[in-house]
Amino acid sequence: MQTVIMIKSGLSAAMNVVAFILLCTAVTYSADGTSVPWPPKESYSNQSVDHFSFGPDNSKFKLRFLYEDLRQNGVGPIFFYCGNEGPIEAFWNNTGFMFDLATSMHALVIFAEHRYYGKSMPFPDSLSQPYIQYLSMEQALADYAYLIVELKQRFNAVRSPVIVFGGSYGGMLAAYMRLRYPHLVAGALAASAPMYWVSGLRRFHRFFEAVTRDYYWTNPECVVKFKDAYSAMDRLVNEGKDGLQLLSKQLRLCRPMANQSDYLWMLKWSRNAFVMMAMMDYPSKASFMGDLPAYPVNVSCDRALSMTDSIDGLREAIGVFYNSSETDTCFDYKLQYIECADITGCGLGDSSLAWDFQSCMEMNLHDASGSTKCDMFPSLPLTPEQVTNYCQQRWGVTPAFDRLATTFGPEAWKSTSNIIFSNGDLDPWAEGGIMTDISDSVVALKIHGGAHHLDLRSPDPTDPPSVREVRETERRLIQYWIRKASN
Amino acid sequence: MQTVIMIKSGLSAAMNVVAFILLCTAVTYSADGTSVPWPPKESYSNQSVDHFSFGPDNSKFKLRFLYEDLRQNGVGPIFFYCGNEGPIEAFWNNTGFMFDLATSMHALVIFAEHRYYGKSMPFPDSLSQPYIQYLSMEQALADYAYLIVELKQRFNAVRSPVIVFGGSYGGMLAAYMRLRYPHLVAGALAASAPMYWVSGLRRFHRFFEAVTRDYYWTNPECVVKFKDAYSAMDRLVNEGKDGLQLLSKQLRLCRPMANQSDYLWMLKWSRNAFVMMAMMDYPSKASFMGDLPAYPVNVSCDRALSMTDSIDGLREAIGVFYNSSETDTCFDYKLQYIECADITGCGLGDSSLAWDFQSCMEMNLHDASGSTKCDMFPSLPLTPEQVTNYCQQRWGVTPAFDRLATTFGPEAWKSTSNIIFSNGDLDPWAEGGIMTDISDSVVALKIHGGAHHLDLRSPDPTDPPSVREVRETERRLIQYWIRKASN
Repeated sequence: MQTVIMIKSGLSAAMNVVAFILLCTAVTYSADGTSVPWPPKESYSNQSVDHFSFGPDNSKFKLRFLYEDLRQNGVGPIFFYCGNEGPIEAFWNNTGFMFDLATSMHALVIFAEHRYYGKSMPFPDSLSQPYIQYLSMEQALADYAYLIVELKQRFNAVRSPVIVFGGSYGGMLAAYMRLRYPHLVAGALAASAPMYWVSGLRRFHRFFEAVTRDYYWTNPECVVKFKDAYSAMDRLVNEGKDGLQLLSKQLRLCRPMANQSDYLWMLKWSRNAFVMMAMMDYPSKASFMGDLPAYPVNVSCDRALSMTDSIDGLREAIGVFYNSSETDTCFDYKLQYIECADITGCGLGDSSLAWDFQSCMEMNLHDASGSTKCDMFPSLPLTPEQVTNYCQQRWGVTPAFDRLATTFGPEAWKSTSNIIFSNGDLDPWAEGGIMTDISDSVVALKIHGGAHHLDLRSPDPTDPPSVREVRETERRLIQYWIRKASN
Repeated sequence: MQTVIMIKSGLSAAMNVVAFILLCTAVTYSADGTSVPWPPKESYSNQSVDHFSFGPDNSKFKLRFLYEDLRQNGVGPIFFYCGNEGPIEAFWNNTGFMFDLATSMHALVIFAEHRYYGKSMPFPDSLSQPYIQYLSMEQALADYAYLIVELKQRFNAVRSPVIVFGGSYGGMLAAYMRLRYPHLVAGALAASAPMYWVSGLRRFHRFFEAVTRDYYWTNPECVVKFKDAYSAMDRLVNEGKDGLQLLSKQLRLCRPMANQSDYLWMLKWSRNAFVMMAMMDYPSKASFMGDLPAYPVNVSCDRALSMTDSIDGLREAIGVFYNSSETDTCFDYKLQYIECADITGCGLGDSSLAWDFQSCMEMNLHDASGSTKCDMFPSLPLTPEQVTNYCQQRWGVTPAFDRLATTFGPEAWKSTSNIIFSNGDLDPWAEGGIMTDISDSVVALKIHGGAHHLDLRSPDPTDPPSVREVRETERRLIQYWIRKASN
């Protein structure tokens, strides 16, 4: 049993988990797999706050990294995890496959923390303007590049090939690292990295269709039930103030909804529970982004179907995520879901503030649910204009929606090599990722029955056969990259 | 006959030319080759001042570009020149080969101006801190990337393959463009781009050996003459104040040298004339970086040998560069050469200020002459410590000598394709470049009898056979890249 900081990962979708953390602090969780060393060794690297300009005040800050040296006689590759949007311990504890590989391949394992998260804050007051302006993907990638150069010296590993890993947003960073710094990185495993959606190259609305499909695959009756629930809620609310009060009571909200705005807030909050459960639809109990049972989609679907009334059913279903401990007597939906520049919402705390800024600046995480007949959610738009207005008011800046597509355009993958893009068909993010081979050495692996970067988790007896095969392919390819880079 | 702005190019070495311009304004020169259209069409593109951070004041500025549309029925590739450190007209007028190619390949020709040069100033007071901090290679590359995306829309050329061109520092930018933005750029011709030296991956002192070798190849007696001259000057100066005065008179300096510091200044000024003539040792008269005769190395060598006294000989030799009009009665060496972070010196004017900042920040242009027996110059060191001190005092910043090597490390070229690195054996910069093939499609072309990016100049009857062959190879490769990108 180990103390794990519960924190969002998974492409920001789980920002509300930060709020969740505030609700349930001092909880202990076991790390994913027994091969994960605990506590991790910790160190820091001096990094320039701004890698691309040369102001008179360009200061340095301390970027944190965790490490475990599993090399034999100081010989072996470097396995480098590209930290995502949260304190790095969460990723250390939920990427057991890397330690598994590192043990057999005798690697030096590094988990680098992303700037502006965890203990890697460039300024005392980092999360406000003008200090937050240096939080960008390119700056984070440059941190990792300089860190790799430094690590090779510090760990006497000048000739060690570097393999980068990452899941979700971290997977995007891993792929970009290989693309950007091929002289420093021999290959990348980018798990569940929604390259197309986040860079704005494809519309995002199929995300909610994918969440719906997860439930449909489990039991089509659940989709009918939830659709009914949303229709029934609409009818109730249209009856006026009494309707809102009745609905608030039936949903067991701590404070009743008072107006249409509260109602919309509640709808997004409820939608997000389904998003989270679809993402974390792992075959075993997991403490990564909430404390969820094995296959939470099935569990929540079963719970819904056990109720006669559709609204009761919806309440029970989302309780699997928002009241996993089953100790809360009511839902504080305004604390558990906070709207921001990310369609899946933001919670509270430093990590979600930083993520909100990132979503505002260069991510495309806006689109509507209920825009097609294929998703079970009510019509809840989030337009570029809404995001722009929000970001201008919140951070005083205008989003650069075209930035990632310009900087790392889709054709770029044809010009690189040694990247694995893995995606699971249970993961609603999968369709936003690279799902077909780009070339012989930039390949797409599909995990049948896999949720959000399941392949990065420690092998487990409950794993579907597909993820075992994919992990084996990943192992073989990584071994090949290392051999090739060592020649 | 066309009015040409005389301005330095050629990896900054010719910063003193800017001073030269001040001395001889309102001079008209003919452009290189008759195929160069004049006057160029001019337009502007809005660019972010900072492409990598997201401050509340991140403003836009107007980046200038020149263009000529030689497509047929709107169909054809885009030929994009990556502007160097100076007003873009100078490059427009001295890259005739591009127009030659564009005419036969029906291309849209674009010459993009580098930020902080010419008319592409981000701020009213750009060339001082904190405004100058956004002058970096990565920012300039990002300008070009965004500009390419915009041009494709503006010129209705969405499907047009883009080939980038550049000479010297512009050649480095061209190569980096293909490396960095392979989805936007199908191939790059990087002429005389001293990748290794500028990124600090190889020591620079062989530069002065190469200048010496140019004179040696012309006539070994010249090298003896100049060595004798430098020894004789030393002897004279060691005789005391009278010696300095006698020497000043013999060299025809406008104001006599008063002390050792003046003497060192004069030595660097004289050294730089040889550097410039070796760089511009073209087979025909050229108005690119000064008004030089055909083969100025031969001319200056002959002049030196026509004098009995070695100091007289040196004076006559450098007069070929510093007094090409033969109208000046004395040399104002302190105006013609100004020391800065670039071993070859800086002149005056906006372009040399901006270049000084760039040399201070991420270039490695420091080393010593006279450090081996193979160069004819006196021992004149420029150490990293000297550069650091200078840059801290001048710009309030510490040079990032390791930046380019980290960002675009030498092994990176193995991971890209479709780049030509061309170099001429008369060019003292050649040894700092990529002189051997990296792969089937990242190739090195050598020009026997070629000076600084001679291949980019308009074909001329006086051209050595080697440059004709190299241009033909370049033409074939570029045609192949376009065909491949169009499929």
